[in-house]
Order: sequence, then C-alpha cells, then structure tokens
Amino acid sequence: MKEINQATKQRIKEMISEMTLEEKVSMIHGNGLFRTEGIERLGIPPLVMSDGPMGVRKDYENDKWEDIGNTYDYSTYFPSNMALAASWNIDKAYEFGMAIGAEARGRAKDVILGPGINIIRTPLCGRNFEYMSEDPYLISKMVVPFIKGVQTKDTAACVKHFAANNQEFERLKINVEMDDRALHEIYLPGFKSAVEEGNSYTIMSAYNKLRGEFCSESDYLLNDILRKGWGYDGVVISDWGAVHDTEKAAKYGIDIEMNVTSNFDEYYLANPLLEKVRNGDIEEKVIDEKVERILGLMFKLNIFSEQRYRGCYNTSAHRETALEIAREAIVLLKNEENLLPLKDSSIKTLAVIGENADAKHSTGGDSAQIKALYEYTPLTGLSMRLGGNTKVKYAKGYSNDESLSPELIKEAIELAKNCDETIVVIGLDHNYDLEGRDRTDMKLPYGQDDLVKEILKVNPNAIIVNISGSPVEFEPWIDDAKVLVHSFYAGMEGGYAVAEAIFGDINPSGKLPVTFPKKLSDSPAHCIGEFPGEESVQYKESIFVGYRYFDSKDVEPRFCFGHGLSYTKFKYSDLKVNVIKGNQIEVKVSFNVTNSGKLAGSEIAQVYVSDLVSSFIRPEKELKGFDKIFLEAGQCKNVEITLDESSLAFYNDKESRWTYEEGDFKVLVGSSSRDLRLEETFSI
Amino acid sequence: MKEINQATKQRIKEMISEMTLEEKVSMIHGNGLFRTEGIERLGIPPLVMSDGPMGVRKDYENDKWEDIGNTYDYSTYFPSNMALAASWNIDKAYEFGMAIGAEARGRAKDVILGPGINIIRTPLCGRNFEYMSEDPYLISKMVVPFIKGVQTKDTAACVKHFAANNQEFERLKINVEMDDRALHEIYLPGFKSAVEEGNSYTIMSAYNKLRGEFCSESDYLLNDILRKGWGYDGVVISDWGAVHDTEKAAKYGIDIEMNVTSNFDEYYLANPLLEKVRNGDIEEKVIDEKVERILGLMFKLNIFSEQRYRGCYNTSAHRETALEIAREAIVLLKNEENLLPLKDSSIKTLAVIGENADAKHSTGGDSAQIKALYEYTPLTGLSMRLGGNTKVKYAKGYSNDESLSPELIKEAIELAKNCDETIVVIGLDHNYDLEGRDRTDMKLPYGQDDLVKEILKVNPNAIIVNISGSPVEFEPWIDDAKVLVHSFYAGMEGGYAVAEAIFGDINPSGKLPVTFPKKLSDSPAHCIGEFPGEESVQYKESIFVGYRYFDSKDVEPRFCFGHGLSYTKFKYSDLKVNVIKGNQIEVKVSFNVTNSGKLAGSEIAQVYVSDLVSSFIRPEKELKGFDKIFLEAGQCKNVEITLDESSLAFYNDKESRWTYEEGDFKVLVGSSSRDLRLEETFSI
Repeated sequence: MKEINQATKQRIKEMISEMTLEEKVSMIHGNGLFRTEGIERLGIPPLVMSDGPMGVRKDYENDKWEDIGNTYDYSTYFPSNMALAASWNIDKAYEFGMAIGAEARGRAKDVILGPGINIIRTPLCGRNFEYMSEDPYLISKMVVPFIKGVQTKDTAACVKHFAANNQEFERLKINVEMDDRALHEIYLPGFKSAVEEGNSYTIMSAYNKLRGEFCSESDYLLNDILRKGWGYDGVVISDWGAVHDTEKAAKYGIDIEMNVTSNFDEYYLANPLLEKVRNGDIEEKVIDEKVERILGLMFKLNIFSEQRYRGCYNTSAHRETALEIAREAIVLLKNEENLLPLKDSSIKTLAVIGENADAKHSTGGDSAQIKALYEYTPLTGLSMRLGGNTKVKYAKGYSNDESLSPELIKEAIELAKNCDETIVVIGLDHNYDLEGRDRTDMKLPYGQDDLVKEILKVNPNAIIVNISGSPVEFEPWIDDAKVLVHSFYAGMEGGYAVAEAIFGDINPSGKLPVTFPKKLSDSPAHCIGEFPGEESVQYKESIFVGYRYFDSKDVEPRFCFGHGLSYTKFKYSDLKVNVIKGNQIEVKVSFNVTNSGKLAGSEIAQVYVSDLVSSFIRPEKELKGFDKIFLEAGQCKNVEITLDESSLAFYNDKESRWTYEEGDFKVLVGSSSRDLRLEETFSI
Repeated sequence: MKEINQATKQRIKEMISEMTLEEKVSMIHGNGLFRTEGIERLGIPPLVMSDGPMGVRKDYENDKWEDIGNTYDYSTYFPSNMALAASWNIDKAYEFGMAIGAEARGRAKDVILGPGINIIRTPLCGRNFEYMSEDPYLISKMVVPFIKGVQTKDTAACVKHFAANNQEFERLKINVEMDDRALHEIYLPGFKSAVEEGNSYTIMSAYNKLRGEFCSESDYLLNDILRKGWGYDGVVISDWGAVHDTEKAAKYGIDIEMNVTSNFDEYYLANPLLEKVRNGDIEEKVIDEKVERILGLMFKLNIFSEQRYRGCYNTSAHRETALEIAREAIVLLKNEENLLPLKDSSIKTLAVIGENADAKHSTGGDSAQIKALYEYTPLTGLSMRLGGNTKVKYAKGYSNDESLSPELIKEAIELAKNCDETIVVIGLDHNYDLEGRDRTDMKLPYGQDDLVKEILKVNPNAIIVNISGSPVEFEPWIDDAKVLVHSFYAGMEGGYAVAEAIFGDINPSGKLPVTFPKKLSDSPAHCIGEFPGEESVQYKESIFVGYRYFDSKDVEPRFCFGHGLSYTKFKYSDLKVNVIKGNQIEVKVSFNVTNSGKLAGSEIAQVYVSDLVSSFIRPEKELKGFDKIFLEAGQCKNVEITLDESSLAFYNDKESRWTYEEGDFKVLVGSSSRDLRLEETFSI
C-alpha cells in the first residue's frame, strides 16, 4: 500500500501553489474521452484512463467515439469479473490484477476502469457479467487482491460503480431506495474492502441516484461514508456523464468529471466551475483539495519517476493467466451418470451445436469490449484439443436471426443423430449481457429451449454447455439433460478451457458466485422487491439478496450459490470450532477435506455462519469464510478458517453501527450453500 | 525411423489383393485438391495433404480454390524455412518439425508439404523464402532433424521440390541443365540427407525439367538416383500439375499425381492410366507397387492404429517454438559504435517508420500462406515491448502504392526529426517473395532507398531493419547506415523478436544462410551462369554457387555467408586438428571459443575445409561443420567437430562417383565464411 509521505505532500502543495486556477480546473475534468489535461509547463501529464474490467479497450480518438484505427492496440482479453469470482481463487484475483495492470501500463494508461463489483441483485441486469457476486463477502475477498495486483504495476484500479448501480434500466437517473441494513450489509461492503483493504487509488461514482441524490453528487455517499467513514484519500472519478450539477459535484466529492461528449470546456467541472470560483460561489480550496488528491495519485503511480513500471501487453504470461482463470471458472452444474469427462479416443465424430460454440464475445458488451489479439471459441477449443483423430462437425442450431430456427434445428438434429457424441453450446451473448439495457426475462433467447429439447430427444446424453454472464432459466429441459457445464464469459482462452474440462484435462473447480433461480419470479428483487422501478426503485427485499433470500424463505433454486461439481468426490470431517475470547473474539474453525475419488481436484470449502437467536432479523446463514484447496486423489488436508467479530455482526440500523449480539451461533461447513456437510453450534 | 516389418508387408499385400484395379488407381491420384480417394469398404481412408512450410494452411473446398470458410482453421504461423536455417540450430529444427507435425495432425492432415530445400541459386527466385540456404551442408544438417521431428507426430514430411527447382520463371516447363558435379555436390545432397538420414516418408517431385525430362517423369531422377541410388522406399508425390504423361509418370516413379484442377478423373494417373492398364500398355504391378508404398506410408503414420497421435494446433507451446526460432533467426548485419542494443529508459519517443513495420506477411506468398491466429508486426512488437513509458509513433514512409512516396517520405522525416530514436523497417513483402514469379532485380522496391537515405540524413543513428525472404541490395545507403538488422519472415512472433533484439532482451545469434551480394551482377547465376533462361536454363556456374563463388573468385559480397554479429565478442583459440586413420579417415577438429564480452550470447562456430591441391577444380573452401554454442560472459567452451571422408570429398564426374584425393587440406575455423580466426593444415 503506497502512502504519500510528508516530503511528497509538501511538493504537491508547492506544485499547486504554482498553478493558475485555470490549470487546476483543467486537471479535474475530461479534456478527452479518456483523459484529463496535463500542465506541460509544470511537467504534469494528462491522467489517462481506459476501460475496462476484461482488459484494456482499443484506443479512441481523443474527442470522438471512433477507433483511432491503429494496428497495435490489440490486447489480452481476460475473463469477466464474474468468471473470476466463480474461481473463488484469491491468488488468481491477484494475478489477474497484476496482468491487467501491466497491460494498462503497457498501453500507456494510468487508470484501468475496473473491477466492477456491484451486487448481482437481479438476473436481468445487463451488466452483471462485469460484476462479481450476489454476496458481499465473496466480493470483498476477490476485489482486494485484484486491486492490489493492478496497483503493483503503477496502474490505478478504479473500483466501480459506487454505489447501488444494480440495473441498467434508466441507469442515468433511476433513484434507488433501500434500508440502512441493505446498504451496509449488502451493497457497500465490497467498496469498503476495496478502499480500506485494497487501497484502491480511484473509485468511480455511479450514474444512478441513491436516496434522492445522484451518487456522483451525494454528500452522504462520497463524503460521509467514503471519505469520513472509510478514510478514503483517493480520487473519485465520475462515471461518464454522471455529473449534473457543478456545485454539488464540486462540494460533495467528485475529483474528476468525465463524460461522453466532446465539449470538454462545458463540462460541469470545467468553465461552469471556473465561473463559480471566480464569482465566489465555490472556494478555490475545494479545487485545491481535488488537485492535491490527483497529484497524490500521480505520485502513487510513480508518474514523476524515471523508475515507473513501463508495462507490456499481449504477453504469453498474460494469456496464461487468462487461461488459468478460465479453467478455474468453469462450473460443472450437473453431471449425471458421470458422463463427463468424455474420453476422446472413443469419439470419431463429434457434433458441436449452437451459435455460442462459434461466437466470439470479446467485441461486445459496450464499454467492456476488447479488441482481442484472438479469441478461442468452444468450437475452436474443441477442434484444437481433439486434433485429427476426431472429426468435429458443426451445426449452428440457433441464430440471433430467429426466423432461421426451424431449418437450423432440423440440421442440428441430423448432425446429432449421426455423431458419436454431441455438445450443445447455448447461452446469452452481448446482445443480452449488455451495458445500458437489462434483459426482460430470464429465458434463453433465439429458440434455444426448443433446440435443446429436440437434441435431447435424439441424444439424451448430449452435453449442454451454457455461456452467459447472468443466470438464465433452464427449466424447459433441465430434468432431461444429464450434463450441464457453465462458463461465464471467460476471455480469449475460454473456449479452450471448456474443451479441457469436457475431456478431463482439467477437473472443474468453479462454484457459482450467484444463485441460479428456477424462474425469474423466484428472485427476491422480483417477488419481494421492485424491478426495474420507474423513477425510483425500492429494494424492498432489503438484505434478502441471493441465497440470503432463498435459504431464509426456503425457496429452492435451480442451482444454489456456491454450487459446482467436480469429477472427484470430497469428504468433510472433523469439524472443530474453538472460541477464543481476547480483546476481540476469534472463532477458529478447523475441519478436514479428503479427496475420496480417483482424480486430483480442487474443492472450494465454504464456511457459513448462522445467528441462531437475534433481536434483529438475520438471514438463515451468511458466507464468512472459504478456502480453495487442491487435493490429489486420496489426499486429506486440514482447513483452518478464523472468524472474527465481523463474521457475527450485522448492521444495527437503530443505532447506525455494526454490532453483534451474544448468544448461540452455528457454523456450517460444506461444498455449497445447500450441500452442507458439517455443523457445530458455539456460544459467545 | 519407422520401418515396415514383414507382417505389415504381408498385410499390405493382402489388402492389395482385395482391391479392384479402379480402387488401386483411386489411391494414386488426387480426388480433391489436397487428398486422394480412400477405399471405404477396406477401411482405407483418403490420404490428406496440406501446405506448407510455415504452418498448416487454411482449408479449401475439396474441388475448388475457395476457402471452406470455417472459423477454426487458424493455425500457428511458424518462421520460414530460411529463418530456421538462419538460426543454424539443429535442435530448433527438430522442435519446429515436431510442432508443425503436431499441427498438421491436429488439423487432420497426413502429409505436410514441406520442408522446402531447393538451393538458393539466385537472389531473385520468388520462392527463396521457402527454402533454406545456398549451402548443401547447412541444408542437410537442418532438414534431417526437421523431418524427424515432423514424423514423430505421425505426420509425413514431404521434402520439396525434387530437384533443381531454383526459379519460378517458367517453372512449369523450364529445362535445367547443369553438369554432374553441380548436381551431385550442390543440388542433390539436401535431398539425399532428407531421404537417407531423415527418412522422409514422402518427397515432392518438381515442376521443372532436368536434362530434358520433367522431374516428375524422370527415370534418371526418380528411379536411378532416388530409388536405386538412395534406396528410397517412400512415396513420390508430384507437385500440383507437374505430370504431363501417363506412361512416363507411371513408370518413372510418381506414386501420387496431384493437380490444381478439379477434373480428378482426367488426371494422367486416373482414367487415362486405367485405360492403359486395361489395354496392356502398363502392367498392373506398376500400380501395385505404388499402392504398396502408399499403404506402407499409411502404416508408418499409424493410420490404421487406434494409437495414432491425434495432434493439436494453436497451442502456446507451438507459439513458444515459433518465438524461439524467430529469436535465433535474427541476423545482426551491422552495428557500428555498438548503437544496439538501445536502452529503453532513455527513449521517450520512438519513431517507427516503414510499411514493413506494420505489415503482416502471413497471408501472402501463395501456397505458403497461413491463416494465422495472430501475427505480431515489428510495430506491434515494439509497442508491446516498450509499454507505457515510451511513445511509439508510426509513419508509413513508403507504400506499395509508390505514387504516395514524396508525401510519405516527408512525413517520415518530420517524425524522425522529432523523436529520440528512429527505427526504419524496410524490405520485401509477398508481392515479391512470391511463388510463381521471380523478382526482376535485387533492389528494394517502393522507393525505399530514397526513404532510407533521407532518414539517415536527419538521423545518422537510425536503426534499419530489413525483412525479406531473399537477399536485397543495400548499396545506395549502406555505408551511411550504422545499424542493419535482418529478419527473414519469422512467423507470428517475428515482430516481437525484432523488438527484443533491438532492446537487448535477446542477443542476436543468427547467421546468414545465404550470401548477400553487393549487386545482382555479382551473383554467380547472373555473371557466369544463366538466368532465367528461356526454354532451358544453363547452370554454367556449376558448383560455384553462393560463397563457393565469391570466395573462389575473390568477389567481395556485401554480407558474406555465415555472417552475423552479436552484442558480445567471441575469441577463438587452441585449434587442434587430429587425423585418425582407421577403416574410414576421421579428422578431429578441436578449438576453444571464449565469450570475451560482457553479455551472454550464442556463437555459431563454423568449420570450413579447403582442398589445397586437387586434380579437380575445387571451391576455395566448403562448410563441413558448425556448432551453435551458448556462452555466458567470460565463459569458454571447447568445441569438437569430427570431419569424415565426405568432408574431403567431391564428385568425380569422370568416374561418376564421390571420392577424395590424398594430399594437403586446410581447416579454417571462424565466425563467418570471411571472418576466419584459426587455420591449420593437415595431410591425408
């Protein structure tokens, strides 16, 4: 964690003292679509930013949304943040951060606009794929190493979108209303960790309103919570076009106003701000504080140092990182009769069906799009992997042009009938997982349900692979499918990882970071809460988001939070819970996990805590620890997880503080939120 | 080396006995642009072939030259054979072979149409980039491990083009005339090694005529030399359209006739052959022998085995091989004042100039073209390597549309003036290094000489990088340029290797496998021999090809055979030559090489032999041994190279046999053919 020392602070003050008001103001708003202005005479460069969470976006003209059109702004296309979260691997989060940080520097960026950590409140949010989870604990554990990784490379992370930006519908103006417990227990913890533990140098304020104020102009959010509450000394960057008021943005915490238009001088924090300072509406020291933070950021990034990390991009090491995460992100949802892994030697002809088998996703999604050096689709990955002894035959099966469906389905059925094995790759694409628009339902589009049903009729053993950035509904055929593999958008190597998993080169080890409900109406935002709202949206479900709802209200999801199968079996045993009372209470949880199957594999052992008696309403249980452990066949490892007071605590909204109540708690240990193998009660 | 055992031979005979004449004939000619017909009822698949020497070509429709249009026939784009030869690294030749063999199998091919090993007789041959060298010894040393590597992967190499296919002008019918010494000492040894030592399962007969007979219908070449002389039991595949006569092709050694047209039944070895067998002009056993060889090939390739290697393609391991070869293939031609390596930290702005900096070459060259997964240009490589601390600015400088020259040069000069360093990337492209057409002169096209001259005026320290598959003329500006780096087309990672070399991440270690003359008229084919001829071309220069000419006739080349600088210095010492007379004479040559500089690096130590007195005319000297050795700074290694009788021998054209004459010989040891550091005379 890089801190600004006294000498640097002094130097910053001196630099500011040499600036004109105009120069200061030029530093706090966009003077390009992805940069501020520098002050050449003082040796201060522009601050250069870039999307986004899946890699460094291609370059645009400074003042218009047109590709700069060069031939060398390809970059590594990393797995989505959701895919990373599905790995539950905090080491990989750090490696991901380092790699994307290095690529950003390699492309001469100072700030990479990620990670995205908004809570998955509804399966429908178009931007879910850019986020991580429905669970704030999992988010916190993943986001901290990610940010630290990025920032080791003299690149600033920009954790986003602060806060409660959980839908795309009317995102530019929707007002989010939720109670204090939901805010503090669900929607803020990820950001708190990003700031307090991750030391994110920058944070992006969201488009939407929270409790009636735009997040980018919210004294409560940016000053009371972020700066005063969490002691944040970094830079707040507005989402592009999120500012609507010069005075509020200036006073309530925006350090850099960015926008999508090219009339840079007319930005709220440009000429209008200058005017207000000149006529005394805003004190110049408000500007000075912003410039001080921006210069502080520049020093943290070694911008004024000859030793600044120079970065690199498109490296094989970065691709390897992308591949390793893609591998660990694959979630084996269903594998009846142990149909997987397939044995390549017994397959002379393989039918690969489905547009998503042959679809590249890197170019879509809007701001998260990547000009990828290459992208392996599942079809490419399967062909590369299987080589010359298996004839891979492809039929599209469905198309985003649905009028083609009957013919495509017919062709696919014929193919499936005539091949030794069939793999159907379905799911969403960035027409649905898309910034700026939410889905309207949870169903698979393009007639895919019909396709899968028909294929399963001719081949009940067909392997179904779903690729999507959000939960989708599998109900029309899920009982008939024996195998279902899921991959979130997993980057340039994602299609190869799918092939590796299907043929057992790797043993799937991902777990869902989000509940897959059976149907949309089971989702708490839709059955209790409100979605998408009109001018306002009420988060009436409060803290009952994701598994907190499904478990507390005993609603059976299709695939629960934390679910993910393996080709081997894990046994849990010897749970010991030891309460240690010192200054702070600690609860040491210890148990053994044994790989009782015949293949090596990794298990994500999950520890949930249930507050058995409370004067406040509590969820049935909450995730408070996990460990991803690799075990050879037959191997046993002891897992130790230490809970602390935060593991027991809730936000007391009557007293506006975090607290816990003494009494009985239960520790639940298992392989998913609904596959709990051990439990023990303890008292505080 | 895979041999066909007796049981297999018996099985082959039984298989043939079950075939109809029509089935046999279907196996010995193309029934697709890249395949023969299989015999399904006997479980015999088609034999599937693919271009080419730089990787597995994209797939075509069976019967027309149209892309099959699938999205997964991308493949690894390897360095050209000439680049491989420039590495002088026989281990890398083996690795290259294994990688391309695996890719061919991965793409379900049985035969990869390479390597190309025709002698570089003239700088102008359009296909030089597909070949290796002007020196038969270097070719032999590189081609043998290459072929062995390919064939470990159950893929057949197809060494080409047999023989004397040294120009593209009228290649389909030109008649090559040369004396016996040239044929046996220069043009055949590579093929002999490929067959005898490399055990190439297949060989491609050339388009051209040799001594009045088409190579694909030459009893002398295919039967006397290849089968009887060298004991070849493999398959001879005609170049595509090289057959002109049913009877000659059938009797004189073609096993599979391929062509570029789709009237497969009308091929000379299709219906016309059937007719001739039926009416008794050709005995059926002639066909049986061909089928026997083809089935033998299929058994060698494990085509009938469940254990056949399945292959894979686009793997990171293959890319790593491509990169390692590209690195070792870079030849540092000139480096005055030790301007290279550049120090990245001192460069804030870098001018990169020249169309070849930004040009992708994978898609060109005709049959050697590759649908590459990606290709790093030098501009991309430099940008990736330099990262965010150096601003890379690009100006095209020249264009294949020469009308743009004045404006482009002006722009480039401005850029060079205003940047800390300038790199100019020039050379040829596949409009010139192109199958089917020779160049008309040795000059750089597109006004590049003017560009370089002008750039050197404003920046005498500009780094010049030449990329071409053949020697080009540098005379108009070479004395003014302090640095010249050369890269043959070096595959998908080639542009990155250039960047690594310029910035000293790697120490250049390639050596020229071909002489770069000062001007075309210095080249023996042009000043003594004939080129391109009309109906016939006379190789009047005889054995005086490449350095054999320049050294014997004392003509100074611009850059001599075997030349290549390093960032460190190598000292040679302690030469010992020890003649051991047993059944066969052996000459043990031992010397020390010391890295006397400050950087680690590899040296290619070369051993030449000079026959001091001979009753036959001999070249001044000939390469008879080399070793590529890696040395840490200060390290010394002993190199031992054993010469044998072949190192002393020549082809006695009066007696039609290889022989040597007793007397005095000289061993010359050094860093290039003209930078000889040690010598010693010995007597036999």
